[in-house]
Order: sequence, then C-alpha cells, then structure tokens
Amino acid sequence: MPDQVLIFSRFPKKQMVRIGERFDLIDAAGKRPHDVFSAEELANVRAMITAGGQALGANVMEMLPKLGAIVCYGTGYDGVDLAAAKARGVVVGNSPAANAAAVADLAMTLMLAATRRLLAADNYVRSGGWAGGTPSPLMSAPAGLTGARIGIYGMGEIGRKVAARAAAFEMEVGYHSRSRYDLPFSYHSTLSSLVEWCDILIVAVRAGPDTQHIIDAEMLRKLGPEGTLINISRGSVIDQGALTQALRDKVIAAAGLDVYEVEPHKPDALSELPNVVLTPHIGGHTAKSHMAMQDCVIANLTAFFSGRPLAHPVQL
Amino acid sequence: MPDQVLIFSRFPKKQMVRIGERFDLIDAAGKRPHDVFSAEELANVRAMITAGGQALGANVMEMLPKLGAIVCYGTGYDGVDLAAAKARGVVVGNSPAANAAAVADLAMTLMLAATRRLLAADNYVRSGGWAGGTPSPLMSAPAGLTGARIGIYGMGEIGRKVAARAAAFEMEVGYHSRSRYDLPFSYHSTLSSLVEWCDILIVAVRAGPDTQHIIDAEMLRKLGPEGTLINISRGSVIDQGALTQALRDKVIAAAGLDVYEVEPHKPDALSELPNVVLTPHIGGHTAKSHMAMQDCVIANLTAFFSGRPLAHPVQL
Repeated sequence: MPDQVLIFSRFPKKQMVRIGERFDLIDAAGKRPHDVFSAEELANVRAMITAGGQALGANVMEMLPKLGAIVCYGTGYDGVDLAAAKARGVVVGNSPAANAAAVADLAMTLMLAATRRLLAADNYVRSGGWAGGTPSPLMSAPAGLTGARIGIYGMGEIGRKVAARAAAFEMEVGYHSRSRYDLPFSYHSTLSSLVEWCDILIVAVRAGPDTQHIIDAEMLRKLGPEGTLINISRGSVIDQGALTQALRDKVIAAAGLDVYEVEPHKPDALSELPNVVLTPHIGGHTAKSHMAMQDCVIANLTAFFSGRPLAHPVQL
Repeated sequence: MPDQVLIFSRFPKKQMVRIGERFDLIDAAGKRPHDVFSAEELANVRAMITAGGQALGANVMEMLPKLGAIVCYGTGYDGVDLAAAKARGVVVGNSPAANAAAVADLAMTLMLAATRRLLAADNYVRSGGWAGGTPSPLMSAPAGLTGARIGIYGMGEIGRKVAARAAAFEMEVGYHSRSRYDLPFSYHSTLSSLVEWCDILIVAVRAGPDTQHIIDAEMLRKLGPEGTLINISRGSVIDQGALTQALRDKVIAAAGLDVYEVEPHKPDALSELPNVVLTPHIGGHTAKSHMAMQDCVIANLTAFFSGRPLAHPVQL
C-alpha cells in the first residue's frame, strides 16, 4: 500500500474527486487521524492535503512516520508548523494565486454590500417596510465609492486584484506591504498611515504571528466613524472582540468579514449587529477557483511522488 | 410671488435643502398638487421638480397655467408626457450622468450578491447553521466571474461604467444598444443575440414604450438556467410576472433588482424567493450622486429663470 495521501481537513467530497482519480486517498474528514485510522493505516501515508488555516503541528506529523509532503488546498499555510515540517524533512506546498480572483471578487462583494447597506435594503423591500412607508433604514445616503480612498493591506496576488477592481470603481487606491512595488497606487510605509488615510480598509495580508491582532482597538479608532473594514485574509489579523465593540459603538461605520478568529463562527454579539456582512469563509469558493486549486494540489502531489521538487513550494 | 417651483414627487426634505436656498419651493410631496394647494397658489408655479419615473401628464400640467419647465431629479424622464409638454411650450430637463457611477456601482453590488449568494451566506453564519454543521446552502460552488460573459443592454453612461467595472473583474463584456460605439466590447445587433451569448444580463437601457416588457418569458428562457438578470433601469422593461415564474422554476438562476413595475414594491411571490436580491430603488442614492443631481437641478432652474435654454435639456 504505497503512496497513500491523507485528507486531513474536512473538505466536501466533490472537491476531492479529481484528486482521488489520481491518488490513493484516505479521509480523516477533519477528525484527528489516529481517531479514524489505525497506526498501521497511517504508516502508509506519504503526503497529506490540508486547509492551510487549520492547525497542523508536530503532534500530527509524529503519527505519520512516512510523511514527506504537506499540500495546502488554497493559498494560505498559516496553520502549518513550518519549523516542525522542516525539522522532519517534510516539504510544504500550496496553491498560490489559484483563488486570487475569486477572493478579490468576494472582497469587492463585501465592500459594496457593507457600504450600500445591502442586507438592510433587501430586508426593507421583503418585509414590506418600503411599501408600507416605514421610515427607510437607508435614508442617510452613503458617501459613494467615486473618489473614496481604499487602503489595501497586503499587496500579494489578491491585493493586486482588489486594487485593479477598485481603480475601475474610480476609487483612489493606497496600500501598505513590507515591500514597495512598481504600481500606480500610493504606498504607505506603515499600516497606521494607510489606516488613517483610507475610508475603506481591505485586509489581504498573509497571516502569521507578526500580523496577529494587528488590527486592534487603536487601529479601528484610526479608521474612524466613516470607515469600513473588510477582511478576506484570516481572522487572526483582527482583534475580533475589539471589532465587535467598535461596530457597536460606531467607532467605525461597517465591516464585511469572510474569516473569523474561530471557524466556523458561532452566533454571538458580532453576528447580532446590523452594520456587518458575514460570509462563511467562501472567498475561494467558486467552480473556477476550485478547479485551479485542485490543479495545484495535483501538480504538487505528482511532483512529490515523482521525486521532484514541489510545483508550488512554500519556502521553509 | 413670482418664480415659484413646485416639488411634485415625494423627496426627502434633505435632498431639497440646497435647491430651496436658491428658489422659492412649494412641496406637494407626491400628492396631487390641487389637493394640497389652491388654484391661486398653483398659478404662481413656473417650474416643477419631479422624479423622472413618476407619471406626469397633461392633467397635471393643466393645473399650472404659468408652467414653463419640468426638471427631473435624476437621469430618467420616462414618466413625463413629453408630447404634452411640447404642446404647451414647456421645456424638460434632467440630470444626465450625474448618478451614473452610483447606479453602476449598485448594478455590480447586485450582480456580485446574486452570483455569490450573499444573502444566504450571511444568514447561514448569523443563524448558526455554519457553526451547527447544517448542510451549507452554498455547497454547490458558483461559476465565478473570471471569464464569465456579461451582457449589457443599453450603452449609455451607466452601461459604460458597468462595462469598465466588469472588465476589471476579468469578465468578457458584450452589449446591445441601438447604436454601435467605438468600444473594446463585442456588439450584438439584437437583444436576443446578446441574451443567448451572456451569462449575466445587465439591464441599463433608457426605458420607454419601445422597451416595455422586452425582457419576457421567451427572453428569460434564452438567458437560461445558469443565467443571472440584473435590472437598475426601470421596472417596465421586464415582465415581472414572467420573471417571478422563471426564478421559481429555475428557468434562470438568479436576479438582482433595484426597480419594479410598481414602486414601492409590495411583498409578493417575487419577494418570497431566495434566489433574488431586492433593493428599494437606491441606485442613485449616494451623497456624491445626490450632490451631482442637485447641481443639475440648480443649473436647469437657474438657466430657465434667466431666460436661457436649460443646462441639461431633454430632446422634445
């Protein structure tokens, strides 16, 4: 039984069909592998497929004596303990940029819905408030995007695609990232400067220990009462408690979130608020994006089992 | 009491403040003018401000013996009986393009929300369905916009702005309008051809008798089961009964509507459907757009009362 691939995270079966046609998969479906499989079964696992945001540490790798490769379905790999992988000689791969357009599209969806108050608007029509002459929740007009300043935190593939879309909306685009790029957008050397400058902040940074809660109460005050915050990166980047309070106290105007500190996100004070739009981590969830991510997974596994370097390696 | 201006439609008072600083306004607030004002009061009215979609015929003009100008707040003037105005020597003006960016932005909002199933997504998080492991209403992934075909019906200021935005979303753009323009998008000489070609149809045509119910059951069949319909023009363009049935029977996939056959739209079979996003005619409703529309109204009234041709005249 050589060359087995363990599916570590819980993925819809549909997303694994094309991969299953090429590799011998065993599916832990998000449970701890040794609760689902015997040590003997796990001894055959040479590679695993994981959702990059899910914690995957030395304790899991230890159960898999023949493990040689960790392949992330998606762009992120922040859940993978890279040091532990490196120490064991395990290579790590991801699906860079495969879902960038889909995630950027969702960032725009959340921005437009939050600034145009789409949920309240739809409810006003459906509930009969409009027909009945109930005072409109939309009476005070939103500023509008033309000329508004969008600040993009993180200028990777997703950030660039958000910038291109925002420019077409006649918005002024600024960004902050570790490096300054040759791009026709204003560069801010600090996140604080970007946040003070912009009306709408898009979090598109690669998450890691250095970005943990970097958007905190102080940063939200800088975004200000007309400000909107969108996060399609990782929940860890934002202090979610501080955000909930800022939205409740109108320290900022609105937010749109696809990611959360704990996923799946349970109903709580945040999900009671009217000035937030919430999606269940569906940024990369389009048919085109899944196809592209599966292509990357297949390319990585094919390279690994052929003894070649991964097609899309993560630097360890 | 010279130079009085009658506010014919029901506008929020806020939207009339800047106009009221310059002109002597009397406000019928959407009621029949002679139910609110005496014939003597109406005899002083030389101009009126109306929402272009509201019916304004000879019967109203007859009550205003000194009427010389009808000024539409917004781009549309489909409710104004232009022949009756012309017969009386009344000029008609509008606010061309003033709200085009705001309306195009809402078209994109509705398109993104409908194709990414934003309402279902938000509800899935808020209701606890996600945390509770309820099967996701989003399980089947949407196609995604990259490479999708967007068909724009009507290539005026709004249509062009939708096209520019859609191109930034890496979509393929096609259009149908009476004239072919020098634009980098594929032209379809008939609406049928455009509808058969596109995945997403955006109705951005100027409404009139010739476009009445032009999107009917047959056209919806041509759009097809993966098709999405967005309307930010006028409700009259679409046979709303046929659309309701097409959405219910999955003849098309989804719709996003800002305009309706009768406004305000009352809750009905349409507003019971999960595959539609509804907004209460807020396309032009942004602070920037209102400012621009008010600028046009002021420019038109100033020209009229100075004895000059309107700044933004409608061809009679």
